[in-house]
Amino acid sequence: MDKSWHNGEWCRSMRIRLDYTNMMSSRIDMHHGVTDDDITYLEEMGRKAHKDLWERHESGDLGFMSLHNQADELQDIKGAAARLQKRFDNYVVIGIGGSALGNIALNSALNPPYYNELSKDERKEGLKVYFPDNVDPELLRGLLNVIDLTKTVFNVITKSGSTAETLANFLIIREELKKAVGDEYHRHIIVTTDPHKGFLRKLATKEDFRSFSVPENVGGRFSVLSPVGLLSAAVTNVDVDELLAGAAEMHERCSGPDIRSNPALMAAALQYLLYQKMKNIVVMMPYAQALKDIADWFRQLWAESLGKKSDRSGKIVYEGSTPVNALGATDQHSQIQLYIEGPFDKSVIFLTVEKFRENVNIPAAGFQDEDALGYLEGSSLEKLIQTEQYATEWALTKNNRPNCKIIIPEVNAYTIGQLLYMLELQTAYAGELFNVNAFDQPGVEDGKKATYALMGRDGYGSLKQELLTGMDTSSKYIID
Amino acid sequence: MDKSWHNGEWCRSMRIRLDYTNMMSSRIDMHHGVTDDDITYLEEMGRKAHKDLWERHESGDLGFMSLHNQADELQDIKGAAARLQKRFDNYVVIGIGGSALGNIALNSALNPPYYNELSKDERKEGLKVYFPDNVDPELLRGLLNVIDLTKTVFNVITKSGSTAETLANFLIIREELKKAVGDEYHRHIIVTTDPHKGFLRKLATKEDFRSFSVPENVGGRFSVLSPVGLLSAAVTNVDVDELLAGAAEMHERCSGPDIRSNPALMAAALQYLLYQKMKNIVVMMPYAQALKDIADWFRQLWAESLGKKSDRSGKIVYEGSTPVNALGATDQHSQIQLYIEGPFDKSVIFLTVEKFRENVNIPAAGFQDEDALGYLEGSSLEKLIQTEQYATEWALTKNNRPNCKIIIPEVNAYTIGQLLYMLELQTAYAGELFNVNAFDQPGVEDGKKATYALMGRDGYGSLKQELLTGMDTSSKYIID
Repeated sequence: MDKSWHNGEWCRSMRIRLDYTNMMSSRIDMHHGVTDDDITYLEEMGRKAHKDLWERHESGDLGFMSLHNQADELQDIKGAAARLQKRFDNYVVIGIGGSALGNIALNSALNPPYYNELSKDERKEGLKVYFPDNVDPELLRGLLNVIDLTKTVFNVITKSGSTAETLANFLIIREELKKAVGDEYHRHIIVTTDPHKGFLRKLATKEDFRSFSVPENVGGRFSVLSPVGLLSAAVTNVDVDELLAGAAEMHERCSGPDIRSNPALMAAALQYLLYQKMKNIVVMMPYAQALKDIADWFRQLWAESLGKKSDRSGKIVYEGSTPVNALGATDQHSQIQLYIEGPFDKSVIFLTVEKFRENVNIPAAGFQDEDALGYLEGSSLEKLIQTEQYATEWALTKNNRPNCKIIIPEVNAYTIGQLLYMLELQTAYAGELFNVNAFDQPGVEDGKKATYALMGRDGYGSLKQELLTGMDTSSKYIID
Repeated sequence: MDKSWHNGEWCRSMRIRLDYTNMMSSRIDMHHGVTDDDITYLEEMGRKAHKDLWERHESGDLGFMSLHNQADELQDIKGAAARLQKRFDNYVVIGIGGSALGNIALNSALNPPYYNELSKDERKEGLKVYFPDNVDPELLRGLLNVIDLTKTVFNVITKSGSTAETLANFLIIREELKKAVGDEYHRHIIVTTDPHKGFLRKLATKEDFRSFSVPENVGGRFSVLSPVGLLSAAVTNVDVDELLAGAAEMHERCSGPDIRSNPALMAAALQYLLYQKMKNIVVMMPYAQALKDIADWFRQLWAESLGKKSDRSGKIVYEGSTPVNALGATDQHSQIQLYIEGPFDKSVIFLTVEKFRENVNIPAAGFQDEDALGYLEGSSLEKLIQTEQYATEWALTKNNRPNCKIIIPEVNAYTIGQLLYMLELQTAYAGELFNVNAFDQPGVEDGKKATYALMGRDGYGSLKQELLTGMDTSSKYIID
């Protein structure tokens, strides 16, 4: 790729920006908005949060903050992607949660809509990509009905190497591959897992699967810029160098402790302040179809990192705002009524795009005298969607609903790298401010154990007994 | 279709059920659960809600409650669908909000996954379907890149006939069609709109488009079982008779005022009670990939109907719980941590399926001694996803998080008809209980007017002035 245009000036013009004007009490009622005093008050906390986080980074604790420096791994990934493109037509990610959401977000953002329906030429030799991130028999059977296994490679992703859903799908796929291609099946499987531990790592050695590593200090939901997300991006020709260059740029921009110039820290501080003002819901609303799945990826990042029963001192806090994904302009016809008129329980983060990669003009068709559509004639879809975003922002503000926007000059690998990494840092800073561990997920253990017990895993016999007796099915609270 | 199996016994076995055991204080802490006394207390309110709603139904006010009786319209729809299947390959819905979400939900629920990638044979002559429900230039251009216009029919759906997004896309499509097929373009456009009023109705007559009507007394978000949703379902061979038969069955089941035997009324009452207990979030979490978009459809239904600033007496209430869509088992790896450990601000409605349309066995592959996956061998994906649902329900209950489930014997047109109509009725009942108008959406007006003003529509000049001066872009609250 020719990167002669890729000079300092271009990079500066591609910096994403945070505009939080409409969160401030100068714009909205002071009961619901943030005051300058609030922010001044947060400055000191922000400095401490920054110091603590970056100390952990420097001690090597937080691998996600170093992922923009992985030149060697990147060569491996690009080399593998090029070879896969020669050999296969389809690339299927077998993974769930943090092993799928980032891949899906990158694909939606950086590949054309209806990508899998394009011809191979139109995809520029990029592979078709599928993300069956569930254990639904109809979904997996449906996938097997549309792909040719002899032309398909499966990337099995689980950091621990023991995720139940991923292993179940893996066992099925492995068997299907054996039927379809015999002894060659191992060439159709790539494993992305812990560098040393776990069942899948062991099996990769034994059965000779190509493998990539999730660095030990990178958690699933912070792994999109590791091989977890990069390989599926690379097989579709996403410029993974640019993704990491964007992340590196954001890393640099967030390296200072001043809340007023560090966008991730400010975004975290604003959410912290709004949570104190009883906003227990945070809506992420991109105005661009391509960014829809980034909001879904963010849901995991925010919910799993900050939804915690105990703070770091062990105090019971039951903390965590609920992230909601929405999409402009679509959800103006679904959610906006509630956001404008309902309880004052939420804030909105818009993602806006200044220049779309395509534009489509609305033709002048002779209806200019029709009140219902004359005003549209001769305009464009880009202008319409941007206008609707601005109109929604204005209406929310007028109704005292705090909102901010992350402005993206154009959707490309460089800006998406910035955005994803900024949201990761924002979440990590929020963990510091809320004083919770943003990197664990103890709350999912109960459900996991119950699944093991009911599936008959060894060592869970007494829990199984408890489960079976605890829940009768002859309840009087059933309407049938 | 042979319906010899379709007798009374089959219908009874296909009734969906509401199980709200885990919302009751016998299962969870009484601060967070509903008591028997609560329900007794609601009985009288429930009776009144029922009486008021059904009186409006009988007066002809609420068209959505009569949609299961539209035999004539149904013949038209099926006839049109059969002709369209002969002539076209692709069916594109140009609509937004209530003119798209129901169509998407029906398609996901009742057609196979990856439906558009199946061959025409595998689709049994069903048309490929697309729902570009946004005004994003990249999305529309992307669609035009993958479809052959000479083989495509567009269903333009807007009840008012004046929805900005729909008309913008329509103008573009109309022009593209003229370029591709000349004077025949009008045969590629089907209009679904008000029977008498609006620009599109007028144009349909003038330009000779085939048209269907949205009954005047049926609002957009309650229109899935009208021609709005039925035609796109019929062109993919969904059994629309069964959809309406399911709705009719649910209508019958909900015709009595007793909260304890009317599932829609009980579901509404439970949400009303939980809202008083500070649960301002309601999560709908299907455990079946096919039902994912029903949760998204429900988001609009619930949010737009109940998110209201004023009650019906004009009192300011800022009412409305926020609907959140989740998906099992997938979101166990995303949202469940927050639902289990976060604030006590939500309840969960599971949608569970007793028998999937496919099953996939997990093979015994010789790993039975491996702790990480031995327990999976010889089981099935159906068992795994159902077990995970039960485990999640148990974990939520153990942690005092109210949850209920709608049990669906099997996903088919008959059960989905029941489900959609039950959720519509539940929403309408909730409107009665909260004493808000569930059938308007005054809160979206501000944003619409601002869009008109900024797009230069006649008559909005002074608002435009206000908008342009009101929001400066040189704010000090921007980090760039």
